[in-house]
Formats: sequence, C-alpha cells, structure tokens
Amino acid sequence: MPLRQPTYANHRDEKSGIFPLDRFDLPRRGPPEWRAMQDENDRYMGYAIREAQRAMESGEVPVGCVIVHEGELIAKAHNQREMLQDPTAHAEILAITAAAARLGSWRLENTRLYVTLEPCAMCAGAIILARIPEVYFGAYDPKAGCCGTLMNLLEDPRFNHQPAVFPGLRSEECGALLTTFFRNIREQQRNGGDGV
Amino acid sequence: MPLRQPTYANHRDEKSGIFPLDRFDLPRRGPPEWRAMQDENDRYMGYAIREAQRAMESGEVPVGCVIVHEGELIAKAHNQREMLQDPTAHAEILAITAAAARLGSWRLENTRLYVTLEPCAMCAGAIILARIPEVYFGAYDPKAGCCGTLMNLLEDPRFNHQPAVFPGLRSEECGALLTTFFRNIREQQRNGGDGV
Repeated sequence: MPLRQPTYANHRDEKSGIFPLDRFDLPRRGPPEWRAMQDENDRYMGYAIREAQRAMESGEVPVGCVIVHEGELIAKAHNQREMLQDPTAHAEILAITAAAARLGSWRLENTRLYVTLEPCAMCAGAIILARIPEVYFGAYDPKAGCCGTLMNLLEDPRFNHQPAVFPGLRSEECGALLTTFFRNIREQQRNGGDGV
Repeated sequence: MPLRQPTYANHRDEKSGIFPLDRFDLPRRGPPEWRAMQDENDRYMGYAIREAQRAMESGEVPVGCVIVHEGELIAKAHNQREMLQDPTAHAEILAITAAAARLGSWRLENTRLYVTLEPCAMCAGAIILARIPEVYFGAYDPKAGCCGTLMNLLEDPRFNHQPAVFPGLRSEECGALLTTFFRNIREQQRNGGDGV
C-alpha cells in the first residue's frame, strides 16, 4: 500500500480527527447581507481559481491569487516559478508587487487577498509586510502552509500587523486542481517521462 | 526616561541575560584553515555592508545582501522598499531573484547568502524555497527576525530544506548602520521634519 499522499482539500486536524472550522460555512446560515458577502468572496476566489488554471496550462504548480482594493480587482497573478526560474515567483508575491505598483504605495491598505492555496512562510511574511488587512485562502497546504497548518504567521501577535485569515473558501475546487496536477506528474513519471 | 529602544547589534537573550553564542568567535581560536574561512566570510559580509551603506544613501533602511556561488559573487542588492514602493523589495529577495537569473535556475545550490540583518519571515521563507545551503547574518532583528529571535524558520525540520545559519558576523558594524539610521530619523522628527 502506498504512503498516504498529502491532500490539499479538506485538510483534517491530525490530532482531533475533525475538520477545522470552515468560517465560510457560517455566512450561508446568516442574514442576507452575510450571504451577499459570501457571494462576493466566492466570485473573487473564482478569479484566483482562473489564475491557477492558467498556471496549470503552463505546467506550473496551479496556484492563483488576486488582490481587491475597495471593491476593485487591482492585481492577479499565478505561480511562475518554472517559467521565470525564480524561487520567489509565487502567485502571492507577484500579485503583491503588481498591486503595490498599481496603488503607488507599498502599504496595501483597504485590500483583500484571495489565493487558492494556503500561503507559505515567504508569502505570509510578504502579506504582513504589505499590511494587507484580510486574507482568504482555498485549500490547506499540509507540507508548507504557514497560515494555520504548520504555524500561523498571520495571527502571530509579535509581528506589527495581523491580517484576518479566512481559510477554506472554495477549498474543494482549489485542492482538486493541485491533486490533479500532481497525479498527472506521477503518472508521467511512471510512464517513463520526465514529469512537467 | 524613554522606553528602551531595540538595539540591532549585540542582541542579548532577555531571559538568561547573556549574549547568544557568536559562532564567528570560534574560528579565530581554531587552526589556520578555520581562520582563513573566517577571513573569507568577513570579506563577503563587507560587500553586504557596502550594499547597506548604498541603501542608507538613498534614504532606505540600511540592509544589504550578497550571494556567493562556489567562491564567486553572483548577486548583490540592498533594500529598495521606498524607492520601488514594493513591500517585497527586501535586500534578500532582490539578491535571490538576481542570483537565480544569473544561474538560470530557481535552485540556488552550492551558494551562501550574506545579509547584514537577520532575515524576516518573508526572506527566511524565500531562502528555504531557493534551497540556499548556508546563511550568514550580521545583526539580530529584535522586532521581526525569524532566524533565531522571534522564531527560527531556517532550522525548522518541518520544511523540506534547512539551511545552516551563522549569526552575528560583523554584527557591530551591521547594527551600527541601523542604529544611526533610526537615530537620524528620530532627530529629524523631533526637529519638525518628516523623517526620511
């Protein structure tokens, strides 16, 4: 029997055996204005998922990110590590740089960041440095996630800024992209190819 | 009496009251080949300090970084957050991107990174992603340092790469630049200026 593969969607707490609270289930049961907010968040995450699909089409690990400023989408990006051969070219870093260029300021105040995968240490650090107030992510990352899985850098009170974190938004779709991508790579490797 | 300002050089362990082990004092008492290694490290940190001085001249927080590949200096950069208005434009991120472009690969194997200030969460994360084997830093950062002060991301066994960390290399010079920079800002603010 093969070792259990890490799963990107529906990440379960290993100790308690239960799924973590999905904060995005709450508004669906709330008053109409909460549901409208939920629809808006679903829509923005949809743009991030579209970016992740673009990454997949280029043979990159499918992660996408968008940044919204006062209701306007000001930046979108997908992972481009392989194409740029740059270890820092994660979707979030590219989107943050683009958003700062658009706003003309390194302080991304009144913004929300939507990303399909839980940010890693680098991206969580960049989110803190950019003073982004709200972060919405899709699938948990069991290997490198630093916004709830391995640690939670975004809610560490020792840093001078703590974004609010909303995990699990459209996590099934976000995780399915990653699962499909890595399954394809393993199949190609089994068939003697080099993988992507 | 004013609140004690954080000091960037000679960071002291608050609990024990002693200075942390300065690994760079050891080679000076060792055999000649250790001392030669120490001289080499001092020299590379000198280039990083020169970069930090360039940052100071442009009114940026003075942090500099260089990356060495098999004895050759392949990248140097200084903090450019204000000039680029980019929250990700820390010295380490700029140097890592430049080094990857130079080597044509996101994997910075057989490299050493020298930086004048302890890396933050973002930069520590980027160092892990770039698979840099050795990291040498100067002054500890009591506010945001993630390589020994607030936490130690570089030596966390849960990540898929752990660089060796060598803290405190020429820490007095590295810290003095920062102390001078922030003292000047406070003086300008007291004199009614806007600061840098």
